[in-house]
Amino acid sequence: MGMEKYNNMDGKPSEYLYPPEILKRLDFDKSPAKFKPKISAANPGEDWMAVRPLQRSDYDKGFLQLLGQLTSVGNVTRKQFEDRFTKMKQSGGYYVTVIEDTRISKLIGAATLTIEQKFIHNCSVRGRLEDVVVNDTYRGKQLGKLIVVTVSLLAQELGCYKMSLDCKDKLIKFYETLGYKMEPGNSNAMNMRFEEPS
Amino acid sequence: MGMEKYNNMDGKPSEYLYPPEILKRLDFDKSPAKFKPKISAANPGEDWMAVRPLQRSDYDKGFLQLLGQLTSVGNVTRKQFEDRFTKMKQSGGYYVTVIEDTRISKLIGAATLTIEQKFIHNCSVRGRLEDVVVNDTYRGKQLGKLIVVTVSLLAQELGCYKMSLDCKDKLIKFYETLGYKMEPGNSNAMNMRFEEPS
Repeated sequence: MGMEKYNNMDGKPSEYLYPPEILKRLDFDKSPAKFKPKISAANPGEDWMAVRPLQRSDYDKGFLQLLGQLTSVGNVTRKQFEDRFTKMKQSGGYYVTVIEDTRISKLIGAATLTIEQKFIHNCSVRGRLEDVVVNDTYRGKQLGKLIVVTVSLLAQELGCYKMSLDCKDKLIKFYETLGYKMEPGNSNAMNMRFEEPS
Repeated sequence: MGMEKYNNMDGKPSEYLYPPEILKRLDFDKSPAKFKPKISAANPGEDWMAVRPLQRSDYDKGFLQLLGQLTSVGNVTRKQFEDRFTKMKQSGGYYVTVIEDTRISKLIGAATLTIEQKFIHNCSVRGRLEDVVVNDTYRGKQLGKLIVVTVSLLAQELGCYKMSLDCKDKLIKFYETLGYKMEPGNSNAMNMRFEEPS
């Protein structure tokens, strides 16, 4: 169709959730994660892969279908998606980050960093890792590690004093290799559920 | 000094972080928590106690000193406090809730509900419980239970599909009595710390 990568049908670049430049300056040598071969958000290892912020046009690039591999998403209309995108952008603090296979214009990985404003620690900010998902037909590309390290370095870049996540038992080891720790006596995640998610 | 409760020096009510009316309509019978005697946000058990949203004037009511009983706060100036208050209000999603001893105009309890916007579960929202602290010279007033149940019911009222918290081992039982659960195989909280909090 003659469109440039990431462009809308009208040829204009699609709106980003946050400025994409910040991803290019993340220093992957700061992470304890070991990549073989060495990759980064700026150089994800294949010329057909791009790590970038969520875009308003990603409704058409399978973003919701990708999330559907993680949990139930439901029937989200384009308007609902765009309204949520707008709300996140207005609120600030939402860093939904994706990996695209640009050959087929499909998203193949995603993770969200949210930034919580605090009064404690000199009005500091805290990061949270949420909704990590990778298309498992892309095994061996280190995509899980790539997307998590990307948003973890992003949290540091944005001044967070810490980054937190909740995870299943079987993922503890994976996150430990990326620098996350269980803190003795203080590593319990509890939930209260109000309704069945749709 | 002839000031009304919660009013500024100029006699006008101090600005709230979120509309206080919502706390009055929370139905404490919906919570599994057992209160003896029965109390609620609207009727906290003593006529000198008030449960309400954080106010811009709470810098002068010992809010930061109260948080200092929980963790390090540092030297937060009035301007820093007000700037953070403004930012939280502009972002939306911050429900810092306090208990005041109105006899002495001091805050004696606090808890924060943050609301995270999601794409999953039909663009749902999720609540988080943060920074719970109660002045321990007010033992026997059920303040811990009161403030946590207040923000938990608030999360439900605001449409959250779930409310989450991280806690120390010794607090698991307390939170279980309020309806929070450890989910088998999926209750690990992990952290990466980037710098020493000041």
